[in-house]
Amino acid sequence: MRRVAVMLEYDGENFVGWQRQAVGVSVQSVLEKAASRLCGGSVAVACTAAGRTDSGVHATGQVAHMDLPAHLDLLTIRDALNFHMKPHAVAVLLAADVADNWSARFSAIGRAYRYVIQTRRARLVLTRGQAWHVDHPLDIAAMQDGARALVGSHDFTSFRASSCQAKSPFRTLDRLEVTQEGDIVSIIAEARSFLHHQVRNMVGTLKLVGEGKWSPAQVGMALDARARAAAGPTAPPDGLVLTGVVYPTDPFTMMAR
Amino acid sequence: MRRVAVMLEYDGENFVGWQRQAVGVSVQSVLEKAASRLCGGSVAVACTAAGRTDSGVHATGQVAHMDLPAHLDLLTIRDALNFHMKPHAVAVLLAADVADNWSARFSAIGRAYRYVIQTRRARLVLTRGQAWHVDHPLDIAAMQDGARALVGSHDFTSFRASSCQAKSPFRTLDRLEVTQEGDIVSIIAEARSFLHHQVRNMVGTLKLVGEGKWSPAQVGMALDARARAAAGPTAPPDGLVLTGVVYPTDPFTMMAR
Repeated sequence: MRRVAVMLEYDGENFVGWQRQAVGVSVQSVLEKAASRLCGGSVAVACTAAGRTDSGVHATGQVAHMDLPAHLDLLTIRDALNFHMKPHAVAVLLAADVADNWSARFSAIGRAYRYVIQTRRARLVLTRGQAWHVDHPLDIAAMQDGARALVGSHDFTSFRASSCQAKSPFRTLDRLEVTQEGDIVSIIAEARSFLHHQVRNMVGTLKLVGEGKWSPAQVGMALDARARAAAGPTAPPDGLVLTGVVYPTDPFTMMAR
Repeated sequence: MRRVAVMLEYDGENFVGWQRQAVGVSVQSVLEKAASRLCGGSVAVACTAAGRTDSGVHATGQVAHMDLPAHLDLLTIRDALNFHMKPHAVAVLLAADVADNWSARFSAIGRAYRYVIQTRRARLVLTRGQAWHVDHPLDIAAMQDGARALVGSHDFTSFRASSCQAKSPFRTLDRLEVTQEGDIVSIIAEARSFLHHQVRNMVGTLKLVGEGKWSPAQVGMALDARARAAAGPTAPPDGLVLTGVVYPTDPFTMMAR
């Protein structure tokens, strides 16, 4: 056996999220079943991911690891996993050999998310399920101003789901950037790791600022309050994409997409 | 009555195309039914579009016109058409008053299309139905080289569907630009008007060049041959989007999205 890392793209819409649940189809269960079939079908294969994305959240750069028989080559592993995962909306983009003690989750030193808001009156058509539909314009400069208060090392209790299981509410947010192109507002968030719902709670709060319901200064005040009720609502999962995971050494340099 | 122009976005996947057909749902029939309901339901309303897109072809900037009662304001027209077109994957982005003799089709002086090819081994997930999946890389420089032979005024018989009803095979192609970003290859095509399947036939031919099966010089030779069989196959509709229509005066400057 040897350990293999895979980079995954998925459409979160029809999944209950990354993690196996009592009811519904998870990305993890689809990947684990495919890996098991790749091993002949009688062995259970466990897969661990860098980010346990929620139901409806997408990924273009999720990373997971699993242990597979040593005789399979990486190109075959990619093709066979993709074959066995049909017709589910998930695909293995890349596969790489990693050390036996390498973990997609614990070896990761960075996660990057993109959140997409589309601001227009008409309902979404080509981007439906992949953006938060807000039917009026947002003040981007005010959102950028509000976002600045969140960058850095803070107690993010106000932006953490009540169900969050992390021991510490402290995180270091390296980047929180709001940009606009036409009616698409993109929010890029980067950190070593995030609390549960942290990105969606930050976006839900910045949207209030963009609507003029909050001043940019209130974002810092919500952070200081260290209480979930002090921040804005949780943005819907549709607009969120896990775009990449950073490791001390990139495992995927040897394979082309 | 007065004439109204609308700008439309649609996902072509579940439509038989713009035009009404004996079987299946067309964008035109959905829009015409919604317009009829807006007028009380008893009047038939005819809609004419700038580009009669085929089944599977998308639009972000299709333009159509129709005649509606004078008492309705444009914001109400947009909202009501969008309401009545639910749950079909089409939306009115903008509406504008135009002169009684203005035609979405005959007043147009330019059409712009984008064709998207995604080159990677894994099947498409987040872009499925909105890109042509090619499972190997393409030589972009060669495709750019081949595209140059098509720009300008030519007899495009080689790139025209055998079913094309246009009287003349002569067209002036103002722009045919191939660019790449990651695994996404975009081809932008602009002309006063296009022949039936012209963009898809040009893309299918340039793909052969990108694969090294054709030299860039063969594209010009195919054009000179003036025979459909001399050019490459028709690219699938999935990757094609009608992105905009140009008029002597832009009718949509008065309304925000």
